[in-house]
Amino acid sequence: MQIDDPAVIAEARALFDRYEQAIASNDGATLDACFWADPRTVRFGITEILYGIEAIRAFRASVARYAPRAIRRVHITSFGQDVACTHLEYQRTDSGLIGRETKIMARLPEVGWRVVSAHVSLLAPDDPGRVQRA
Amino acid sequence: MQIDDPAVIAEARALFDRYEQAIASNDGATLDACFWADPRTVRFGITEILYGIEAIRAFRASVARYAPRAIRRVHITSFGQDVACTHLEYQRTDSGLIGRETKIMARLPEVGWRVVSAHVSLLAPDDPGRVQRA
Repeated sequence: MQIDDPAVIAEARALFDRYEQAIASNDGATLDACFWADPRTVRFGITEILYGIEAIRAFRASVARYAPRAIRRVHITSFGQDVACTHLEYQRTDSGLIGRETKIMARLPEVGWRVVSAHVSLLAPDDPGRVQRA
Repeated sequence: MQIDDPAVIAEARALFDRYEQAIASNDGATLDACFWADPRTVRFGITEILYGIEAIRAFRASVARYAPRAIRRVHITSFGQDVACTHLEYQRTDSGLIGRETKIMARLPEVGWRVVSAHVSLLAPDDPGRVQRA
């Protein structure tokens, strides 16, 4: 397994950039086209738990405008020729809140690169459920 | 690329279960052993943005007790022989809060299956930055 083949990273980055541009322009059709059209696709959003492309499409249809965000850091790692993980750390330009988005991308038979799983969340200021060492 | 090879899913599930047991028993050494010991490993936690195994280890060292959680749903998809995504939806048994954890696992040369990226977050009740359609 080759990790971080530059050609694979570049292909994942192209899909990453296409997706980010679609978020910036509230382009739901392109966001949908970025995702694997399959019941196994998962999207864990800030307020959503979505299993399957149909649930993800219903969510896309419900959104008029995404919160505007500026990229703080992008970190992509690829494993072999057909899978990459993209990590985005961003800051919302309206509220200043920090968010993170992890996407797993796969080069799928016939259709090419697609997002097969996405997890987006805002950074929480604290976690009262966890106990830190003194 | 074979998607969801049952043997691959079973291997990913074994690491998933080992990790979940380690969370339940606050076993930081096992959690550390589950992760890829590499500067490229990422962990986006509820309150943390961690790049690289050293940052993740420092976080592990700071935790005395994880919030107890009960599994609500596990969804695993594998891509080829060497990569799987595990999705966990859980409920904290102390507060009732719902959380989600996505892990990307890879079968790495020499060391075998490891978590190469993890993203955990609590489900937010709303997102004031996003505009829904009327």
